[in-house]
Amino acid sequence: MKLESADLQKIINGYYEKYKTLKTGHLADYIPELAKANSDHFGIALVTVDGKIFTAGDFSQNFTLQSASKPFVYGLALEAIGREKMLSKVGVEPTGEAFNSIIELEKESHRPYNPMINSGAIAVSSLISGKTFNERLGKIVHLFEQFCGHSIAVDENVFESEKKTAHRNRAIAHLLKHFAIIEEDHIDEALDLYFKQCSLLVNTVDLAKMAATLAGGGVHPESRKQIFTAETSRDILSLMFTCGMYDTAGKWAYTVGLPAKSGVSGGLFAALPGRFGIAVYSPLIDQHGHSCRGLKVLEDFSRDFALSVFSNGVR
Amino acid sequence: MKLESADLQKIINGYYEKYKTLKTGHLADYIPELAKANSDHFGIALVTVDGKIFTAGDFSQNFTLQSASKPFVYGLALEAIGREKMLSKVGVEPTGEAFNSIIELEKESHRPYNPMINSGAIAVSSLISGKTFNERLGKIVHLFEQFCGHSIAVDENVFESEKKTAHRNRAIAHLLKHFAIIEEDHIDEALDLYFKQCSLLVNTVDLAKMAATLAGGGVHPESRKQIFTAETSRDILSLMFTCGMYDTAGKWAYTVGLPAKSGVSGGLFAALPGRFGIAVYSPLIDQHGHSCRGLKVLEDFSRDFALSVFSNGVR
Amino acid sequence: MKLESADLQKIINGYYEKYKTLKTGHLADYIPELAKANSDHFGIALVTVDGKIFTAGDFSQNFTLQSASKPFVYGLALEAIGREKMLSKVGVEPTGEAFNSIIELEKESHRPYNPMINSGAIAVSSLISGKTFNERLGKIVHLFEQFCGHSIAVDENVFESEKKTAHRNRAIAHLLKHFAIIEEDHIDEALDLYFKQCSLLVNTVDLAKMAATLAGGGVHPESRKQIFTAETSRDILSLMFTCGMYDTAGKWAYTVGLPAKSGVSGGLFAALPGRFGIAVYSPLIDQHGHSCRGLKVLEDFSRDFALSVFSNGVR
Amino acid sequence: MKLESADLQKIINGYYEKYKTLKTGHLADYIPELAKANSDHFGIALVTVDGKIFTAGDFSQNFTLQSASKPFVYGLALEAIGREKMLSKVGVEPTGEAFNSIIELEKESHRPYNPMINSGAIAVSSLISGKTFNERLGKIVHLFEQFCGHSIAVDENVFESEKKTAHRNRAIAHLLKHFAIIEEDHIDEALDLYFKQCSLLVNTVDLAKMAATLAGGGVHPESRKQIFTAETSRDILSLMFTCGMYDTAGKWAYTVGLPAKSGVSGGLFAALPGRFGIAVYSPLIDQHGHSCRGLKVLEDFSRDFALSVFSNGVR
Repeated sequence: MKLESADLQKIINGYYEKYKTLKTGHLADYIPELAKANSDHFGIALVTVDGKIFTAGDFSQNFTLQSASKPFVYGLALEAIGREKMLSKVGVEPTGEAFNSIIELEKESHRPYNPMINSGAIAVSSLISGKTFNERLGKIVHLFEQFCGHSIAVDENVFESEKKTAHRNRAIAHLLKHFAIIEEDHIDEALDLYFKQCSLLVNTVDLAKMAATLAGGGVHPESRKQIFTAETSRDILSLMFTCGMYDTAGKWAYTVGLPAKSGVSGGLFAALPGRFGIAVYSPLIDQHGHSCRGLKVLEDFSRDFALSVFSNGVR
Repeated sequence: MKLESADLQKIINGYYEKYKTLKTGHLADYIPELAKANSDHFGIALVTVDGKIFTAGDFSQNFTLQSASKPFVYGLALEAIGREKMLSKVGVEPTGEAFNSIIELEKESHRPYNPMINSGAIAVSSLISGKTFNERLGKIVHLFEQFCGHSIAVDENVFESEKKTAHRNRAIAHLLKHFAIIEEDHIDEALDLYFKQCSLLVNTVDLAKMAATLAGGGVHPESRKQIFTAETSRDILSLMFTCGMYDTAGKWAYTVGLPAKSGVSGGLFAALPGRFGIAVYSPLIDQHGHSCRGLKVLEDFSRDFALSVFSNGVR
Repeated sequence: MKLESADLQKIINGYYEKYKTLKTGHLADYIPELAKANSDHFGIALVTVDGKIFTAGDFSQNFTLQSASKPFVYGLALEAIGREKMLSKVGVEPTGEAFNSIIELEKESHRPYNPMINSGAIAVSSLISGKTFNERLGKIVHLFEQFCGHSIAVDENVFESEKKTAHRNRAIAHLLKHFAIIEEDHIDEALDLYFKQCSLLVNTVDLAKMAATLAGGGVHPESRKQIFTAETSRDILSLMFTCGMYDTAGKWAYTVGLPAKSGVSGGLFAALPGRFGIAVYSPLIDQHGHSCRGLKVLEDFSRDFALSVFSNGVR
Repeated sequence: MKLESADLQKIINGYYEKYKTLKTGHLADYIPELAKANSDHFGIALVTVDGKIFTAGDFSQNFTLQSASKPFVYGLALEAIGREKMLSKVGVEPTGEAFNSIIELEKESHRPYNPMINSGAIAVSSLISGKTFNERLGKIVHLFEQFCGHSIAVDENVFESEKKTAHRNRAIAHLLKHFAIIEEDHIDEALDLYFKQCSLLVNTVDLAKMAATLAGGGVHPESRKQIFTAETSRDILSLMFTCGMYDTAGKWAYTVGLPAKSGVSGGLFAALPGRFGIAVYSPLIDQHGHSCRGLKVLEDFSRDFALSVFSNGVR
């Protein structure tokens, strides 16, 4: 079926009805706060590059960004320091390892493989410049507020919970410092910035707008503001495609074929370049940390309408 | 610049002139026959999905397919045995390792990570069915003749050279047999089939037509014959994108953003879905086994016209 | 208790009685012939460096040497080519990997880590010189006949079974050839020699004499012939200690503390330098390929009499 | 030559004269304080299990223990918590990796491979019990004072230098906490204890007495006090043998054949069970962190008198 002629609201409603009773997956338990989420919550939002919005279910329910923040903070740092310096700090290669792997840092370059895994994202956060912690945090919050079109807050309970239990991320940060990928002296502050970024509260529509901005070459679907350059948007989408789904990136490319990113709190979004962004929120996740309902909706949607970037023009 | 309004012949000529004096790289030396190639040879061909052909340089010079054969034989096997069985034999995940790696076979699944590396491609060749060796080889040759539109031959010198020196590939085949990925009894015959496939002779235009067929959803640009289904074409392009350039796949996605595949003899091709296939032949290769001139032409072309699948619609 | 004052025959009998009803473990199944062994068989033999022999149970039952051959063929090759050349081909470092690992060959040196794992042992076999296959095999057979004091034979059924199913070892041999560790052209012949060596038939007393020769600085306990130099004996014992029990070498050193070697057919032997060799045969093996009864007897014996080389002089 | 009949003082003097002009190696530079050592310093001490002392050169020069402390603190913890609990926290297998590796923690068990590498030693330090930091440090200091026979101090400059730069060790500690190998809450305190232990000041004679205690089954050569049980001493020697020289453990076993341990500050000691301990101090180290002069002296000594534990009784 051609997507052009389809009724998008009806499509979204259909996937919502189909999967609202699906109960597979589990709540994230690696930090206690996330385990308190309501496993019934399920929202879908699609935002076209020209600003049409379609929603279903709990689309206005807030959740923390977690790893869904990574592509955007990467874009922010990339535009500030440029490609060459960025590539000297964080690579662009997929890794067969999980999102929280530390192993690749021991290999030849001692750079994180890519900015979608924790080691890369922590390095990227440390590259956000600013005289004070608050100035740096302010830049990140401002970026996301531009996407959302409203002010956003840090979930302080999630932040504190994350901060307290994140021994693996703390290990990663010290190793990054050891290899001089993180340059600054204050490891604790660098991690706090990363944890704050992960703890920012958005809803499904906000996330879909963020995706739609990338799909639209960096232009916000409503404000029409150029938040990222077209080049940055393309680089982000490219990285999401090869690295966004961690060690299932290849399968995702093969079965869905859209650049996407998930967060362990249950957010999952994808972008069809030139067309739209779509986001799903449902906190029941699989063993890779991806929202189970989110995976189902995107797999169906891509298959039903041949959305893969590799079937473009011939569907 | 918009590609639609560009003069493709002029563009091709421009890249040819720009890089014909480039002498970086070396001739493949892992088999003696390949080291006999003429390092001056340089051909470019672009074929649109509706059959327009643009060429420059030594576009009619024959060379052996080598790894450029892998995506197509994968498609042949995939259509014969189906996705489910294929995924049980060969995965779709990129690996951080080189094209001839054997390490991933020792990991949990004992499956090759993907069909673009040697282990996966050898497994795929062994999946081509047929009562006799010649029947199986016949299927592969027939496939490529449909792409080329003329009869093609095996370079027997390259085949013999490859067969004699391929101790690493032989090791891989025995390990695949050990793990029951290769089911048949005759390892030597399975390898011979793979070496024959790698030794098939094509020219740059042939290769561009193969790429254009994938770009066109499996429909041949000239004969209009549906050689692969649209689904198979999409799956092949998806695999080329995430795995086709081996351990530089991520960088390729980031800097070029087109599904592509290279062969160690100097062929390199890419496809822009819905638009065209492009191929470059030049036997001087870099340390990853990619044609140096080929890389330059494709990097320039993608950057100059924003061809990345992730800038689609917004270039 | 001091071993000097102990009645060795009584001790051996005690362990035999204690463990003859133990049924843990399984028969080796990786080659069909080995799975035909009688799981009740259980023999113990202790031979002192001055030729006293103590036995219990099925000590005259024949079994194939398998990996128990490795230390001795290593000694044969070492004395022929010298330390320097040997170290250029095969290392002396323990590996955390299993006995049939192939991974270490991909690492920096491309040498097998040590001669106790299959890759190292295959490389060592290929270093035995001789104009013909039979001459090379003859050297190996002669070596073992010197230890046993009688003629020995190859179990041709085991040899054929091994040869037919050894795809992993065949993979290893091709990779060794690829990295020029194996120099000769005939991979198949090199492997045949290795399989023949593994298929040589000995009994528990034979194995204990082999161990006693190493314990006695290379001097055979009965014939008083210097089969290996004292240096070679020491090198072999050293390698057995750090690498002989594969990935459980550290635990073995910690709990038993004697140089030892096991074979997958159920033979296990150890040497106390200056004192004796001891061998156990029982074909029920654990997941590491070590004889279960053999482990029990040696653990008890070492603990009961403080035999560890590191408690020497203070027990 | 038989060691029994040799003049030990003359032997020690000989090695001292032979190597005092050797200038190979470099000063440890990973912490600034160690780089301030005097590269001319060179001391040798041999202490027999019955308390005879032989010395040469700068045997009374103080240096920090560094990794030479690891075997002894391991013994202290082992006697306190028992073998079973210890093995659940820290393994006994050699690793092919370097002393500061973090990779093995990601593997199946998440236990450090052994207590001779940093991850294992940090885990061991965290197992020393005590209500306060000072109580725990007091236990460690007391242990070493028993060996030395005099009070010892922490080099506070080295401690501070180590503490400030140890990002890799800090990463290891957080990963150990993540995997619940370290149970206590205060990572910083656990690391401080480890850094203090590494910064304890001893001289070459002290170190030789420590070694002689292990050689004597835990009985101090002078005080005749049983500092460790015979079993603990044997376990420590066993671990030193298989793991003490890190990724060169196999070569060390093959060429020297004595349980040994080195520290990056230039101390190196070995023990011949039942006979003596020997220590060398010289701060010029090789790329593995072993004292270059120390290696030479011990290699010569072992070869000249066939000291390997595997030639025992037959030299």
